[in-house]
Amino acid sequence: MRVALVQTNPEFGEIKNNVTSALSLMESVQADLYVLPELFNTGYNFVDETEIEQFAEPATGQTSLPLCQFAKKRGSFVVYGFAERAERVFNSAALVGPSGTIGVYRKVHLFDRENLFFAPGDRGFPVFDLPIGKVGIMICFDWMYPESARSLALKGAQLIAHPSNLVMPYCPDAMVTRCLENRVFAATADRVGQESRGGIDLRYMGMSEIVSPSGEILQRLSTDNEEIAVLEIDPELANNKKINSRNDLLADLRADQYSPH
Amino acid sequence: MRVALVQTNPEFGEIKNNVTSALSLMESVQADLYVLPELFNTGYNFVDETEIEQFAEPATGQTSLPLCQFAKKRGSFVVYGFAERAERVFNSAALVGPSGTIGVYRKVHLFDRENLFFAPGDRGFPVFDLPIGKVGIMICFDWMYPESARSLALKGAQLIAHPSNLVMPYCPDAMVTRCLENRVFAATADRVGQESRGGIDLRYMGMSEIVSPSGEILQRLSTDNEEIAVLEIDPELANNKKINSRNDLLADLRADQYSPH
Repeated sequence: MRVALVQTNPEFGEIKNNVTSALSLMESVQADLYVLPELFNTGYNFVDETEIEQFAEPATGQTSLPLCQFAKKRGSFVVYGFAERAERVFNSAALVGPSGTIGVYRKVHLFDRENLFFAPGDRGFPVFDLPIGKVGIMICFDWMYPESARSLALKGAQLIAHPSNLVMPYCPDAMVTRCLENRVFAATADRVGQESRGGIDLRYMGMSEIVSPSGEILQRLSTDNEEIAVLEIDPELANNKKINSRNDLLADLRADQYSPH
Repeated sequence: MRVALVQTNPEFGEIKNNVTSALSLMESVQADLYVLPELFNTGYNFVDETEIEQFAEPATGQTSLPLCQFAKKRGSFVVYGFAERAERVFNSAALVGPSGTIGVYRKVHLFDRENLFFAPGDRGFPVFDLPIGKVGIMICFDWMYPESARSLALKGAQLIAHPSNLVMPYCPDAMVTRCLENRVFAATADRVGQESRGGIDLRYMGMSEIVSPSGEILQRLSTDNEEIAVLEIDPELANNKKINSRNDLLADLRADQYSPH
């Protein structure tokens, strides 16, 4: 599976330009799976609910169309973050492929001011059994909760696609632990740049990365540049949960010994 | 709470000398809690079950006596790893204080050849409400499973005492994630040196450390030396689970969204 990290610098509210700009990066490499940042089409730093109402769109809305076209043309899959208009508005990530929109993940762990604008995800953590491999999705701050990646690993994910807008410094290193403790690949696609809106300044840290099931950082992008990288991984490696001849990561879980949430 | 990391280099099977040697390090500093390595009295690299039978002792056995005396004299608490003889033999850690033995934790996640010699822990992850703070215990490889530290945090642990014998390189950095994702302190007490027995060579990596609830490595010891360090921490800081004004780490858990184990 050739995985592309698409690290962009969206301009707030400029959906059309942001999508065009991401597509132009994506067209420069051939991959089986392209992972884009959280809210890559709208930008992140919403001031109020009115703005969300203005920019949210259904999973099959305007942003999905050129991405589906791209996926069809290339025979590829794309995971991208967007504000999903549904019965409520969710901070979501869609998976599209050659045949169109395949599924949507709604962010379960909302970060800080997202709690003002978005409804919390209500459908758990999905894993999609694609011809290229088993791809799970979580979004940004979900990394803080080991339950997110664990849920995906328990459902058989070989790779976690992880659209992000990172503003805290911890995630890139923490993803090493997330991959180790689940023996899965993860592709964290972050954005760069800053957004100063409504008195709130946010700076995004880039450092999009692909980490292996043994906790190796296979690729890590810059802190400041829009860029794309493509890396070939063997998703089957994530099926081997053996830590050594006597420890199997998931078989050795001791559910009866853990405190209930 | 003054926490001492006691990083020792036990000689296999020399229980008396190993205890004396640890006590001599401990006597050099005053602390409220001393954390010693896993199996600090016996050494780690057992060849077969016969050896375990020879060296295992009850929680109130020969090793506990001088440590209880020390705890009484100093008005301190001590957490140390030992092979526990009970209905079966466990890889355990005892907590002793001024009034004697307070409790025992039996390692839940056994690593590699430990599976040949020890029975898996059967009493979950304990937290002890001490006058100096709420201290939870896990042992070495338990770090690999986020469920271990999470279980302790859910039971109110402010500090995780973590006796270890680290042979894989990942744990010291992973403990940063463990502390961040639970907003607790952790004191990992590792050993140094190597043990070549029965054709198995093990090298222990030291790097005992204390990590804060915000993921800061407050203290990290060397990779090769027997040493002790004492650090004052405020365990109350671990009561604050606020990540920001809108996120509370434990209150924001979404149990209904996670996959069951």
